[in-house]
Amino acid sequence: MRLSQLMLPDIQAAYAADPDAVRELFEDLHDEDVADIVESAPAELAPELLAALAPAQAAGVLECIEPKEQVELVKRLGVDRASTIIDEMASDDRADFIAELGHEFAERLLAAMDDANEAEVRSLVQWSEGTVGSVMSTEALKVPVEMSVGQVIERVRTVGQLAETVYYVFVVAGGDKLVGVVSLRDLILCRANEAVASIMTEDVKSVSPETDREEAADLIQHYDLIALPVVDAEHCLRGLVTIDDLVDVIEEEATEDMHRMAAVQPLDDSYFGTEFWTFVLKRAPWLVALFIGGQFTANAMGWYDDVLQKASVLVLFLPLVISSGGNSGSQSAAIIIRALAVGEVSIVQAGRVLARELAMGLVLGGLLATIGILRAFFGAEGSLVAMTLGVTLVTVVTLGTVIGAMLPILLERLGLDPAVSSTPFIASLVDLIGIVAYFSVARAMLV
Amino acid sequence: MRLSQLMLPDIQAAYAADPDAVRELFEDLHDEDVADIVESAPAELAPELLAALAPAQAAGVLECIEPKEQVELVKRLGVDRASTIIDEMASDDRADFIAELGHEFAERLLAAMDDANEAEVRSLVQWSEGTVGSVMSTEALKVPVEMSVGQVIERVRTVGQLAETVYYVFVVAGGDKLVGVVSLRDLILCRANEAVASIMTEDVKSVSPETDREEAADLIQHYDLIALPVVDAEHCLRGLVTIDDLVDVIEEEATEDMHRMAAVQPLDDSYFGTEFWTFVLKRAPWLVALFIGGQFTANAMGWYDDVLQKASVLVLFLPLVISSGGNSGSQSAAIIIRALAVGEVSIVQAGRVLARELAMGLVLGGLLATIGILRAFFGAEGSLVAMTLGVTLVTVVTLGTVIGAMLPILLERLGLDPAVSSTPFIASLVDLIGIVAYFSVARAMLV
Repeated sequence: MRLSQLMLPDIQAAYAADPDAVRELFEDLHDEDVADIVESAPAELAPELLAALAPAQAAGVLECIEPKEQVELVKRLGVDRASTIIDEMASDDRADFIAELGHEFAERLLAAMDDANEAEVRSLVQWSEGTVGSVMSTEALKVPVEMSVGQVIERVRTVGQLAETVYYVFVVAGGDKLVGVVSLRDLILCRANEAVASIMTEDVKSVSPETDREEAADLIQHYDLIALPVVDAEHCLRGLVTIDDLVDVIEEEATEDMHRMAAVQPLDDSYFGTEFWTFVLKRAPWLVALFIGGQFTANAMGWYDDVLQKASVLVLFLPLVISSGGNSGSQSAAIIIRALAVGEVSIVQAGRVLARELAMGLVLGGLLATIGILRAFFGAEGSLVAMTLGVTLVTVVTLGTVIGAMLPILLERLGLDPAVSSTPFIASLVDLIGIVAYFSVARAMLV
Repeated sequence: MRLSQLMLPDIQAAYAADPDAVRELFEDLHDEDVADIVESAPAELAPELLAALAPAQAAGVLECIEPKEQVELVKRLGVDRASTIIDEMASDDRADFIAELGHEFAERLLAAMDDANEAEVRSLVQWSEGTVGSVMSTEALKVPVEMSVGQVIERVRTVGQLAETVYYVFVVAGGDKLVGVVSLRDLILCRANEAVASIMTEDVKSVSPETDREEAADLIQHYDLIALPVVDAEHCLRGLVTIDDLVDVIEEEATEDMHRMAAVQPLDDSYFGTEFWTFVLKRAPWLVALFIGGQFTANAMGWYDDVLQKASVLVLFLPLVISSGGNSGSQSAAIIIRALAVGEVSIVQAGRVLARELAMGLVLGGLLATIGILRAFFGAEGSLVAMTLGVTLVTVVTLGTVIGAMLPILLERLGLDPAVSSTPFIASLVDLIGIVAYFSVARAMLV
């Protein structure tokens, strides 16, 4: 941000004097930095700056800009100038971008674009959100298995400029069937007359366009790869996904999990990029559902009118009891949801988790009960309250811990996202259990 | 897991027949897969399998194994056999590994290692956890600025096998001063007689060993890089961090934030890797603190004895009121904590966030109040409860939303981790506010 604010006045002056000078000025900068400058330029200057760049750089810059601003900018550029730039974009970014546009403008732009690029966009936008197809690029560098190392390097030289990555070269046979992969590193380290078949790795990790993109991210992370090839059912090479796309996936998935855990429907945009009323819609349904579910707590309390009449002092400690259950439940839920997400725990280990969290709940509940009993005993509340508090705390904290841990595992088992077992949901459930436990124990003590 | 379970009996049989055959069997597998097999092998066989591999592959396999099991395995291998393997490890993994060992064993191992490697480990382990120094590797590939492209490629060929990545070659002048970077891609795409100085990028993004590793992860992600050079105060090249190390950082940071948000002290190990009593210590202090803080709710309820006497029906709805405040607060907290972590919101935007969340709280509170009033009105509770519920819900949900959003920003402003403003902590604060608001409104209505 600071860079763009510093440079903007100079850029504006340079552009006024000679639009071509801007191109030279931008040539030595990172695309990301140029994007910052374009984004902070006045609305009428921004598209002109982009148009002043060489199309390849303009495409790189456009890829770095937020989806909403991209659309604004391209609409201002007009179909003709925009299509030249968009033809130069990487296929995955291009498809994402076209998907953001309104239907009519997208069609006009596609018509103005290069035919091969148009066909590619149409084949990429078919994949649904969250799949590898939606983040893959089609520019995988492939060579026939018969080539020598020298020939492959020569091929990298000729077509490398267009590929998404040249660090992995995919080896194909009989049309497009993927038979191996060779890294640029290995190519450089070998003699030119060696056959590529003799140095390639045949055990290629690959994914299909339908694969969940999170699974691809796990694979790339597990094997420390830079890119993964995407193959179809016939094992023909369709494209590749690169680590930088998947880093974004890892971050987005973590954000979605955090939002779900707090009972917020995941956002499609950034905080300020989300409209106020969209935001309300992401939050209100869950709050209302929890509120309506919470009515049961009022009903439950109604059942214990006799207890409340006889020992109204018990009510004072009710919020404390139920929040202790909620707190221990949300601890377990966060630990288990995250452990499932990063693959530290799997559903086959449900029994081990149950045993562990049960023991944990008893220890933590026992600890809080001891503090609670001491407090009530030395306070003015007397032994009825002290004993009720003690027994209830052990029960509620243990149940909170176990429910918080097991509910995410149950959801995973059912094929749902464990993060949906949000902290507020678990807290509400534990509230209800807390009320029933507290007053049932009290009733038993009073008799 | 499945692969290793399938192959283990065959491997055991092969090893019994001829230990050398195992080496050939493993040669074509990914290090990660071999690591799975070694990890699931019986305790006495595992070190033997590792010793049967070529030292370079054994080092790669060892890098893929969990820290605790690494230590076990290496202790069983003994100092001599272990040092040969550890000499072949990447410098960052080696330093991490040595740091895991007990002091005495580490010293014996260091003594048995190659002298250069020993010195390197000692220089790497000095960096504290969480800095770039703690994840960097020293094997950056560097070339003098005077070289031609052909000479650089030749250098890559000779020393490339030892470098952490050959995809970026760092160009240095006057000793080790970093003056540029050139990607292997650019080298391949250029003519051999061109000067490297004419094709290198001079605007190199770099970090220092003291930089927060999260900052390095942001930079690598922002600029879509594969690696970042690490330079010292004199801008001399000290090493590099690669994207695969930083992917782990991104994931770890998200895990820590999720744990903190649920009032769990971040774990150093995986779920099952953490001992039971260590786990108790990560959870108990927060639960106890929240429990002791929760005593205030009991005190607060004591202040409203008169209200409770006159309208005991109000008590029925108390859990509902306070959980609504807690739920809206945890929604805001999760949204803002995450937005701060990924850089969507910064503290200078506190005013905008406040205005937005205030409006959001009023809308959400108004919605819940409407439902609550209708419910109480058509139920048997009458208009006193209905009005008290309505006014309190608007107040509590609005305050919950605002506190949930602003507390993380305040913590960030104070230089603390915003995720420490955990959901349970915010919920406890809002419980107290809810009780005071609810009964104060009721008292005013009763008069």
